[in-house]
Amino acid sequence: MTPGFSFTVLKADGEARSGAITTPRGEIPTPAFMPVGTRAAVKAVDPEEVRASGAAILLGNTYHLMLRPGEELIRRAGGLAAFMGWRGPTLTDSGGFQVFSLAERVKIGDDGVVFSSHIDGTRIELSPERAIAVQAALGSDIAMALDECPPGDAPREVVERAIARTTLWALRQIGAPRAPGQALFGIAQGGIHVDLRLAHLGELAAMPFDGIALGGLSVGEPVPEMYRVLAEVAPAMPAERPRYLMGVGTPADILEAIGFGVDMFDCVMPTRNARNGQAFVRGGRINIKQAQYAEDPLPLEEGCPCPCCARFERRYLRHLYLVGEMLVARLLTIHNLHHFGALMRGAREAIAAGRFAEFKRGWLG
Amino acid sequence: MTPGFSFTVLKADGEARSGAITTPRGEIPTPAFMPVGTRAAVKAVDPEEVRASGAAILLGNTYHLMLRPGEELIRRAGGLAAFMGWRGPTLTDSGGFQVFSLAERVKIGDDGVVFSSHIDGTRIELSPERAIAVQAALGSDIAMALDECPPGDAPREVVERAIARTTLWALRQIGAPRAPGQALFGIAQGGIHVDLRLAHLGELAAMPFDGIALGGLSVGEPVPEMYRVLAEVAPAMPAERPRYLMGVGTPADILEAIGFGVDMFDCVMPTRNARNGQAFVRGGRINIKQAQYAEDPLPLEEGCPCPCCARFERRYLRHLYLVGEMLVARLLTIHNLHHFGALMRGAREAIAAGRFAEFKRGWLG
Repeated sequence: MTPGFSFTVLKADGEARSGAITTPRGEIPTPAFMPVGTRAAVKAVDPEEVRASGAAILLGNTYHLMLRPGEELIRRAGGLAAFMGWRGPTLTDSGGFQVFSLAERVKIGDDGVVFSSHIDGTRIELSPERAIAVQAALGSDIAMALDECPPGDAPREVVERAIARTTLWALRQIGAPRAPGQALFGIAQGGIHVDLRLAHLGELAAMPFDGIALGGLSVGEPVPEMYRVLAEVAPAMPAERPRYLMGVGTPADILEAIGFGVDMFDCVMPTRNARNGQAFVRGGRINIKQAQYAEDPLPLEEGCPCPCCARFERRYLRHLYLVGEMLVARLLTIHNLHHFGALMRGAREAIAAGRFAEFKRGWLG
Repeated sequence: MTPGFSFTVLKADGEARSGAITTPRGEIPTPAFMPVGTRAAVKAVDPEEVRASGAAILLGNTYHLMLRPGEELIRRAGGLAAFMGWRGPTLTDSGGFQVFSLAERVKIGDDGVVFSSHIDGTRIELSPERAIAVQAALGSDIAMALDECPPGDAPREVVERAIARTTLWALRQIGAPRAPGQALFGIAQGGIHVDLRLAHLGELAAMPFDGIALGGLSVGEPVPEMYRVLAEVAPAMPAERPRYLMGVGTPADILEAIGFGVDMFDCVMPTRNARNGQAFVRGGRINIKQAQYAEDPLPLEEGCPCPCCARFERRYLRHLYLVGEMLVARLLTIHNLHHFGALMRGAREAIAAGRFAEFKRGWLG
């Protein structure tokens, strides 16, 4: 493992496990949820508000950051965490996922991807080695290997070719120069094909990655399919390394995946949905724009100790949303991040107490 | 004066004076700057951030609030301060200024104004009595009388007619039912005509208003003209009541007006300019989008203790601005409000110490 990086499983409850990842910039209790700070900012909130929600690590998007402000500017500013004023560890993705979803005129080959910036059309090359070099400049605590992520409905042959290329790239990246103390995770693909996933996991497990991620889930396949794959694949991931399910998900998805042994998650859902007026509450969600909240004096979620629920009523939040005041985006984001923070803390404590199944049932109501 | 409302001048330094306004919801040290919370929110920040900047009182816009969410909803929510989570006094304008600047198909007569909402075209009538009734529902600590505010370049005859109508309306409003403990200020017009202003002030001073405001300045006339008028008019305002200069202004304007004896100010400048990337610093302003800040590790204003300057560098703020992250609007708003807060606190302390002229020179650099 990378010096300064370690992972300890403290307690198991069925397949679920609680533990801690140690990085040079701090410890991350697991299972952990990582808020997404796409462009060196978690949208609508400041780093201290993110921290107060219980998040111990942030995710930054390499694709966005290499375009603006550019990884070398961030390197000169002391790295991503220092640049954005976040006192803690960060994880950066490889840039690949956004290249496939946002960039234009994308060409993929064994040497990497070439694409046009969605901002100004600049032609940019992202090789496996460059994906690591950019992340080294960003100075994240955990870098992700560049992978090829096929769509959720891709035919088996396409998935097989993506796996082969991802392995080829992994071999080229595992020895590429990184920032001091920067860990590197590999990403397993395989779509909804359990046999392909298990085989790919075996290939990646043989390489000295500090952790292993599952990519290519929650990319359009039906939710029951994702659960079926996770049930068979997650417990087969190397037990002594962190297991990271990328881009997931709803509280239900997260609880399901924790039950299968996953340790790390990231998702834009708490932040993006907040900006659309949606607040997570136990057992569901509410949309603040609805007329039923016009004169509602309750907080977003009764009993929630977050700064939004402690100070503001639904009727006021609805007014802010309807007139378009940006304060509402921040307040709902704070609440949703606290909701996810409470979910993860509850899960960790439940696993430690050997009552995770009960906690899961209780949370989903 | 209204029971529960009082004003004390503690110290004079030339025409400048420091003192305190007492309202049922708290004390306001003067000279005071009131951040503008147009739609029951100071744009981009929360009430605790406004409070931390040193502001003791907020302004709400009656025109906006009567349209959305409506004054009766706010009354049922406990009034403007309770509705928005602001623990302190509020002042509401009469709605007139926004009717003239924002509404459509405005018809003005001796019985008030009729206009079409700029949001949905609804035809709405705002009589002098209704302006007070709406503010009574909003439950502000200080209500403003409805006035007619002609443009800065209006001919003398137009200004004279506006004065006559404003006095007529003032007489109708002075006895209109208000919320318990709610003070009422009258507004003097007169454009840049000192003789008209002094005459109008005399009429208003004869009525039991709790304070007197100057309207119709900073509405397009040249700045030196405003200063010339203020120099003659402000010292002639009733000394035992708060003097409020509406819609002003830059730090230079505020310092000039304090020097002539004005006690209260409001302006969207610190908040609106922040959202356009402009930060106030001693002796000037900077625009964070400029290329010279691309790699600048300094805070917005060196030595500023505000939460923005304590934690974030210009290079990061510029990045946020260029990519359009809303966090930058909040951070620059916080800084600008602190800048205005420091300006007012400095002015109060300087007046108390008998060195206001020196403070003014030092601030403007």
